[in-house]
Amino acid sequence: MEEVHIFCPATIANVSCGFDVLGLALDSVGDTMIVRKTEEPGIKISKITGQDLPLTTEKNVAGVAGLALLEKANYKGGFEIEIHKKIKPGSGIGSSAASSAGAVAGMNMLLGNPFTLSELVTFAMQGEKLASNVAHADNVAPALFGGFTLVRSYEPLDVIPIPTPTALYATVIHPQIEIKTADSRKILKNTFSLTQGIKQWGNVGGLVAGLFTNDYELIGRSLEDHIIEPIRSILIPEFANVTQAAKKAGALGAGISGSGPSIFALSEGEQIAKKVADAMRKIYSSTGIDFDIHVSKIATKGVRTIA
Amino acid sequence: MEEVHIFCPATIANVSCGFDVLGLALDSVGDTMIVRKTEEPGIKISKITGQDLPLTTEKNVAGVAGLALLEKANYKGGFEIEIHKKIKPGSGIGSSAASSAGAVAGMNMLLGNPFTLSELVTFAMQGEKLASNVAHADNVAPALFGGFTLVRSYEPLDVIPIPTPTALYATVIHPQIEIKTADSRKILKNTFSLTQGIKQWGNVGGLVAGLFTNDYELIGRSLEDHIIEPIRSILIPEFANVTQAAKKAGALGAGISGSGPSIFALSEGEQIAKKVADAMRKIYSSTGIDFDIHVSKIATKGVRTIA
Repeated sequence: MEEVHIFCPATIANVSCGFDVLGLALDSVGDTMIVRKTEEPGIKISKITGQDLPLTTEKNVAGVAGLALLEKANYKGGFEIEIHKKIKPGSGIGSSAASSAGAVAGMNMLLGNPFTLSELVTFAMQGEKLASNVAHADNVAPALFGGFTLVRSYEPLDVIPIPTPTALYATVIHPQIEIKTADSRKILKNTFSLTQGIKQWGNVGGLVAGLFTNDYELIGRSLEDHIIEPIRSILIPEFANVTQAAKKAGALGAGISGSGPSIFALSEGEQIAKKVADAMRKIYSSTGIDFDIHVSKIATKGVRTIA
Repeated sequence: MEEVHIFCPATIANVSCGFDVLGLALDSVGDTMIVRKTEEPGIKISKITGQDLPLTTEKNVAGVAGLALLEKANYKGGFEIEIHKKIKPGSGIGSSAASSAGAVAGMNMLLGNPFTLSELVTFAMQGEKLASNVAHADNVAPALFGGFTLVRSYEPLDVIPIPTPTALYATVIHPQIEIKTADSRKILKNTFSLTQGIKQWGNVGGLVAGLFTNDYELIGRSLEDHIIEPIRSILIPEFANVTQAAKKAGALGAGISGSGPSIFALSEGEQIAKKVADAMRKIYSSTGIDFDIHVSKIATKGVRTIA
């Protein structure tokens, strides 16, 4: 195999209660990439469509993630990468993660899968580091594993795949204002109260239990964030109205996608997820802010080949 | 039915990462109680053996928990309660919880089970409030539900039973020094860093996932406490040596049981759990401090009738 065409899923990190540890992959929202082997060593970003992003390997998240893989690979050649962006950078649904994960997953396929998914996560994290100064894994882990993932620990990296109920759908609204992950991290407080913490880890436990038992109500009850959301939501216009309207329309719960500005909601079934989209659209239509809305099943697979 | 003889399990709260939310019940360590209906209204504590505890209803945790149930019950009579303590108060394995849970579970049985397990938890929490000034549920929930439980939320109370792998055993060493839960809470800090928090909720998610998937290694890796243990362990002689020796003897992980001073370890299989007991015994034998050691399967049932 000399070339792969791949789909690189958008991802929702944090998922309310799981700051820096939980994430999920979307099934029908994402970039496409073409990765091909070259005789020339190194990584060349040959083409980017859809967004104005740097072609210089060392300045491109896919390039940096790819170089991290190359360093550990027993391979004398190189790779050429085409990136066709559908996910907007700064949207909060894992734009940089899709590119980083796609690059390393595509390269791994072409090399005959020498690396485990967890190893690919460590390479892709280098792309995240370039994008936001922090090598976080909560987007690249679900982009590579698919479904829900829990990053239990960073040192050493310990990614736990969590099963996803089949009828779980996400609705995401992306207001076209850019919040850089790095900026969005700056406003966070460094300390939290024990009372907040108890609620937070109670909810993480509840969400994981709900995912294992297909208990949609429990999933919904656990989608609370007592630590990050109260701070970050002030950067997102109409946040409270959108999440309230989503729940009123039948969503199990709603919150900030990653570091924002996107807002996500989870629902049982596509029909409700679409009603939730309508409710979100109605609110944002009156703001004058441009926006995109996505409705997607949760992906059971991570980066995958396409025809 | 006019009388029940019941076994009231000892419990391990917190289970390292899950401060105030996680707990588990022991199968072969606990008190016994006799609860019988009386024509006279109210609760009478007629007998206590094994410990010097107050017989006055309002000063006894079983009495207070029972009164909380009576207030909501459609019942004109009363109850008489005998408590045969095997669990020492202040041991950190849920002595007050066993009495509180036993009283309300026994009364509920005699009334034909009008209350749900979650309702019984709310009654039993009144006993915990008397014992430690805080109406915590992380001991009474597993004492009533059995197995592992997660108290996802207190307002409203949301107790989630978590499945328990069949070969999971606990070893508990109880140094005969008393640490009151109230005192042990006083030394806790009210704030923690976000970095500590991320590790903590990552581990709670990992532990819950490990219990659902019978992944003993994951259970072990998740038995970390970055927030409470570093502070509370200073009250427990030989804490670091005991937990290290337990792991060296094959335990999956170890930590403080509840607010201490008991130290628990979890192991896969009874044989390893007994080796862990030997390792703990060896260390404490040289301290001059009296101690008890228990080895027990995790209970699949909560308070249960006995012959």
